[in-house]
Amino acid sequence: MTKTGLRRDRFDLAAGLAYLNGNSLGPLPAAAPARMDQVMRAEWGKSLIRGWNEHDWMGWPDQLGDRIGRLIGAAPGTVSVGDTLSLKLFQAVSSAHALSGRKVILGDNGNFPSDLYMAAAVPGAELRVVAPEEVAAHLTEEVGVLMLTEVDYRTARRHDMAALTAQAQALGIVTVWDLAHSAGAIPVDLARSNADFAVGCTYKYLNAGPGAPAFFYAAPRHHEAMQNPLPGWLGHAAPFAFEQSYRPAPGVARMRVGTPPVLALAALESALDLWDGLEMRDVYQVACGLLDQLVDGIEARCPDLQMVSPRHADQRGSHVSFAHPEGYAIMQALIARGVIGDFRAPDVIRFGIAPLYNGTRDVAHTLETLTEVMTQRLWDHPDYRKKARVT
Amino acid sequence: MTKTGLRRDRFDLAAGLAYLNGNSLGPLPAAAPARMDQVMRAEWGKSLIRGWNEHDWMGWPDQLGDRIGRLIGAAPGTVSVGDTLSLKLFQAVSSAHALSGRKVILGDNGNFPSDLYMAAAVPGAELRVVAPEEVAAHLTEEVGVLMLTEVDYRTARRHDMAALTAQAQALGIVTVWDLAHSAGAIPVDLARSNADFAVGCTYKYLNAGPGAPAFFYAAPRHHEAMQNPLPGWLGHAAPFAFEQSYRPAPGVARMRVGTPPVLALAALESALDLWDGLEMRDVYQVACGLLDQLVDGIEARCPDLQMVSPRHADQRGSHVSFAHPEGYAIMQALIARGVIGDFRAPDVIRFGIAPLYNGTRDVAHTLETLTEVMTQRLWDHPDYRKKARVT
Repeated sequence: MTKTGLRRDRFDLAAGLAYLNGNSLGPLPAAAPARMDQVMRAEWGKSLIRGWNEHDWMGWPDQLGDRIGRLIGAAPGTVSVGDTLSLKLFQAVSSAHALSGRKVILGDNGNFPSDLYMAAAVPGAELRVVAPEEVAAHLTEEVGVLMLTEVDYRTARRHDMAALTAQAQALGIVTVWDLAHSAGAIPVDLARSNADFAVGCTYKYLNAGPGAPAFFYAAPRHHEAMQNPLPGWLGHAAPFAFEQSYRPAPGVARMRVGTPPVLALAALESALDLWDGLEMRDVYQVACGLLDQLVDGIEARCPDLQMVSPRHADQRGSHVSFAHPEGYAIMQALIARGVIGDFRAPDVIRFGIAPLYNGTRDVAHTLETLTEVMTQRLWDHPDYRKKARVT
Repeated sequence: MTKTGLRRDRFDLAAGLAYLNGNSLGPLPAAAPARMDQVMRAEWGKSLIRGWNEHDWMGWPDQLGDRIGRLIGAAPGTVSVGDTLSLKLFQAVSSAHALSGRKVILGDNGNFPSDLYMAAAVPGAELRVVAPEEVAAHLTEEVGVLMLTEVDYRTARRHDMAALTAQAQALGIVTVWDLAHSAGAIPVDLARSNADFAVGCTYKYLNAGPGAPAFFYAAPRHHEAMQNPLPGWLGHAAPFAFEQSYRPAPGVARMRVGTPPVLALAALESALDLWDGLEMRDVYQVACGLLDQLVDGIEARCPDLQMVSPRHADQRGSHVSFAHPEGYAIMQALIARGVIGDFRAPDVIRFGIAPLYNGTRDVAHTLETLTEVMTQRLWDHPDYRKKARVT
């Protein structure tokens, strides 16, 4: 176990703060501003247009993709970075849908809503949404694509990726996994799970900053046949030949759309440096210990909070959620006291554990503050009921 | 006329450099690194997740869109920033196609290639590509969408936006204009031209950095009916209600896809500050004077270079292009001597004029160096024939 987190000194994070919201936005890697300054002044400022060659900016999406790949069990050359998670999800689901040759996309109501909106917009597709526990029963030969968010953003309930993938594939179904709450949070082994496609974001447990780029994974067996529904020039086999017709680049590079977001990628690079020398399974083991402490403490001391996350670590991600009719106000009272988790409508408060910067000190601080807030009803204050635009 | 540019002191640009490549990547605004550092350390670092409310990050795409709108004749509330140009083009063409209720999209071979790839990928559409001078003759009631890049990226040939828009609309055709080489380069008046949709990028004449976000414009008359083919959660009427079904936000905000790229937007903000107090038509007048000097000088002193841009300012953008079989090597020889333009396959060299940082000194430097390179055949060196990955 760790008191302050495995890499706390490499984050710019106030000492007294229990930041349990890495499941929403990771904190600032301390080295990121200097790296950004270097990319802006020395690379963009001095190299100007030559930067594309002198600093290989065009290669960053694949290089950074490979570094993310190490954390999610993806071989080099199977992950590419860019755009946003919703967009990468659309590309993955659309590609999977075309490969399947069937109409139906099966999702569940544990999918992040944007995934459902995007899947419903795939031309020619019919989206079916069931409850998470009913997914297995709805896998039939009528289904073309199984689209699931591995870890539910509200409850942290985790799907069994390997089992559902195997069951789906036995029926000829192509799988798409959203790893938003998995990458950097729990051990993921895309290769061993035999997943077809996966996507994820880098602003949560990967700490690359607000609105940081997303990533796209495709199993090598699909690299040749998969098609990009958004065939922008950077996914062309020869973008600088400026041909009138599209020819896809080999591999996941074809899922590029426009010009790589160089400044955003500089921040991502600094964020991924923090994972060097760490293995995801070790980080996760620390997280499990901290989550157990947190859950045990809350259940013992705050009986009014109803746990909505699975009780067993192997059935959940790296956050835990509790329901309470006054959830919103409770979270505001916590935030005012230096414990930052978050709230998801209608009534769920969430605490994410990220062992890179969370340790036993944060758990103790959270338990103490939460107990105070609940037993003394400190949440019962009009200030804590004012809803912000972004919750 | 200006010797060094209207705002040269507010760019981080080496004194001896003639940077005539703002048509590809604008230089670094001197204030951008400090603003970025502030957003990283004080906003992301200190506010963490609270930054979305404390600094209104969610509002930046529209605020910055309004500031771009001032430069392209677009009313407040009609421009939104995000994603990449190829993606915004796809959204615009797809929206226009749906509104038109017709199958055919008419483009020309002066469209940036990515626009053609994207238009061809709009489900249910048939893309027809003609020569730029044949566009008017191909406007018929069979055509649903007219998609044009206003200023040709190679030759700088400019379409008459108002005339073609009027002709198209008289036939019930919906127009989409790509302003990649127009925004910040020439006066554009989207409202007066009655354009339906427009898109553009911010890393060329708007100086927001490599891979900076794009922008999307829709005329107010389409705000109610237009549909986003990529309906991500940030374009939802209530993204944080996490509803299972998509309901579009009002206006151009519905064209958002994923989370706004906050760090990239910080750089864009600094870049747009440089336009405060300037009117596009005044900047353009300076550009015309500089371009005339440059063109007159090249024609007089370098007869082997064949001008492929229109001779008259009102028929072109803010760059001029010349063809030569050794164009690539000529440009490399210039770059080695501190004159940075660029090359576009197969044989075109381009010089962009951006009066924010270009002045008569740059033109004189360019003419002197180019004359030397051509008369002494300095380009005839094996080093200048080595092709880089990104040209």
